Amino acid sequence: MTSDKHFRVGLLGHGTVGAAFAALLPRHAERVRTLTGLSPELIGVLTRGRGSFDDILERSDLIVELIGGIEPARDYVLRAMNTGRHVVTANKQLLSQHGEELWETARSNGVQLRFEAAVAGVVPVIRVLQESLAGASIDRVHGIVNGTTNFILTEMARTGATFDETLAEAQRLGYAEADPSEDVDGRDAAAKMAILARLAFDTPVSLEHVRYEGIEHIQPDDLEYAQELGLGLKLIGTAERVGDGLSVRVHPAFLYPGHPLASVGGPFNAVTVESEAITEITMSGPGAGGPQTASAVLGDVISAMIPPASTPPTSTRLQIVHDVVSAFYLHLDVADEPGVLAQVAQLLALQGVSVKSVVQKGLGDQARLVMVVHPVLESRFSAAMELIAGLDVLRAPPRAIRVLEEEFG
Amino acid sequence: MTSDKHFRVGLLGHGTVGAAFAALLPRHAERVRTLTGLSPELIGVLTRGRGSFDDILERSDLIVELIGGIEPARDYVLRAMNTGRHVVTANKQLLSQHGEELWETARSNGVQLRFEAAVAGVVPVIRVLQESLAGASIDRVHGIVNGTTNFILTEMARTGATFDETLAEAQRLGYAEADPSEDVDGRDAAAKMAILARLAFDTPVSLEHVRYEGIEHIQPDDLEYAQELGLGLKLIGTAERVGDGLSVRVHPAFLYPGHPLASVGGPFNAVTVESEAITEITMSGPGAGGPQTASAVLGDVISAMIPPASTPPTSTRLQIVHDVVSAFYLHLDVADEPGVLAQVAQLLALQGVSVKSVVQKGLGDQARLVMVVHPVLESRFSAAMELIAGLDVLRAPPRAIRVLEEEFG
Repeated sequence: MTSDKHFRVGLLGHGTVGAAFAALLPRHAERVRTLTGLSPELIGVLTRGRGSFDDILERSDLIVELIGGIEPARDYVLRAMNTGRHVVTANKQLLSQHGEELWETARSNGVQLRFEAAVAGVVPVIRVLQESLAGASIDRVHGIVNGTTNFILTEMARTGATFDETLAEAQRLGYAEADPSEDVDGRDAAAKMAILARLAFDTPVSLEHVRYEGIEHIQPDDLEYAQELGLGLKLIGTAERVGDGLSVRVHPAFLYPGHPLASVGGPFNAVTVESEAITEITMSGPGAGGPQTASAVLGDVISAMIPPASTPPTSTRLQIVHDVVSAFYLHLDVADEPGVLAQVAQLLALQGVSVKSVVQKGLGDQARLVMVVHPVLESRFSAAMELIAGLDVLRAPPRAIRVLEEEFG
Repeated sequence: MTSDKHFRVGLLGHGTVGAAFAALLPRHAERVRTLTGLSPELIGVLTRGRGSFDDILERSDLIVELIGGIEPARDYVLRAMNTGRHVVTANKQLLSQHGEELWETARSNGVQLRFEAAVAGVVPVIRVLQESLAGASIDRVHGIVNGTTNFILTEMARTGATFDETLAEAQRLGYAEADPSEDVDGRDAAAKMAILARLAFDTPVSLEHVRYEGIEHIQPDDLEYAQELGLGLKLIGTAERVGDGLSVRVHPAFLYPGHPLASVGGPFNAVTVESEAITEITMSGPGAGGPQTASAVLGDVISAMIPPASTPPTSTRLQIVHDVVSAFYLHLDVADEPGVLAQVAQLLALQGVSVKSVVQKGLGDQARLVMVVHPVLESRFSAAMELIAGLDVLRAPPRAIRVLEEEFG
């Protein structure tokens, strides 16, 4: 393949995700060309008021469908696949209600139908179910698959505010839509769980099979009392084998702190897949947002262009850096005498190492200084350690362990 | 494709993972045939004492390499790809030291080289980096990629025992090998981080570029003091952009409780990928174990057989079950008078609902009964709720929210 070859992408829809995708594709074109040998090119965008589907279809190798809803999205996607085009879509309504028709059309035309962005945004749960776990016999899938409700529940627990107050705040911050009903009543999550259940259990599941319940009725004191019992509240989707059958449902549920989904806060999504052979896999990440969802769409587009399991040649030659910035925990066995802390602090300061917290423990022979220092170049910290190691007041070599901080790097 | 078509798999190595894979493949053959239209068949196993590589190669469509080490694994894998066979391997040493040669050989022969099991067992980090995130510009990868050290550190923090004592315990339980040196000195994690860094940053990285430090020197009182500071200790691998360069390193590091890797305990592995576009994805699951690693190998074998992004026809028709077993939190606004709890408990008992914990809150008009009940069929619980709603002592309709318990289901 040469750099002259183009891969022509037609885009249907120009809302939040569509616009983000249209902006993302040209920014990544050079990188995609390196990966695949093909230059992706956005050949046309169909919006409510502009463009012709037939014209875009005619000139495309792949159609990205981000219109949402059932029609005309269903018609467009079917026509694209029936004329040999790959399709990438984020349309959970369409897949949860007409999935079998679409997947059958993809199979019979030998084209790819990818939909990672339809469930849990960039969390790669579709690909993992379709490919990594294709051989596993899955027992249960649990998911936090709606970011709006997870944000609202996280905030209600944190602030003690009511559902209505917190929903208004979520709308103000852009975490809830003007009409939030499908999110808060559980229907959005139900559509996503129908898709996950279909893939996990190889059995026909559509939205109508999913029993769902929302979070509108949750009271602040439910969260308060539950916190006393050690419980946190999430809107949980479940798809699980029950005897010879399958239950797919969405409802609020309290989780004990040890549950892998208990720590998933704010607008994040997460999915846990359980199977005897693999025990349990958990995946989490941002569940929505224009740029994040557009990234998932782009990942699908590139996957349709790239040969399977390919590791492309290296495209850069980054220099390997050894001296990086780290925070440290520092443990010193010291003589219990006046001025020890001052001596240590002075040597640290000499190398620009600044102390964040310090605890002095024990007395006499057992005296210890335990401190955490702010991020600093490791070479500077090592120099300070060498100086400290030479202090008479030290009873044993100093011990240092790095501390990972989120705020730098 | 018909059921008469076979896909011939040759297996090199019959240790823990090899034996688990040889047992797993026939158990999943029927399912794989449904998925792919091809029957996978194990045509031969090469062990230290038995079998001929040339003979196995001759009769295989795909080679699974689970010998480990550099030679003869490297020679076998190269010869397999050079004669047009796909290869699935779990060999982190080989990939971290000779990866470029192997990937180039795969590309030039148009065959697949898959290695999900080489890093973090069933956690699908390889596939996600190669495919889902192929379009993302990655800033940082953090990983807990060695289950032995994570188990030891988790246990040291829990029990206060020394490193040597805990290592002996890990060996007894099968979480550490007889010769644990490559695990505890960080070299195993370093090899895995070299592979992840190569994929995440498209730049040549091999084991020799990775600076590593192990956990042998960790003292129980480091963990104790750090717990007082709110910190937990993990062996963390990091690959991150630093200016125009790249740092790849493995060392023990303390984490604050909010870090996505802080809650990963015991022998589990987890990887976090950060990128501006996607924010952050975290994946976790069992990092080792024969059956788990064999599952990852099987996922790779099936992926090599299946067309990309394919959603096969449904293979089962599970009945949708609506009445499932759940635990519940129950909130009752009640009159503050004697016997209320007894009345409620009696109605619950009538439907077989058993109380796990109960809290009585407030006085007079503000009195509330908050309880958690043990898992019970939801229809039985609803019947109890209807009876309770009819009680005179209730001031408001009862409120119930499900509680997810790990122990049933």
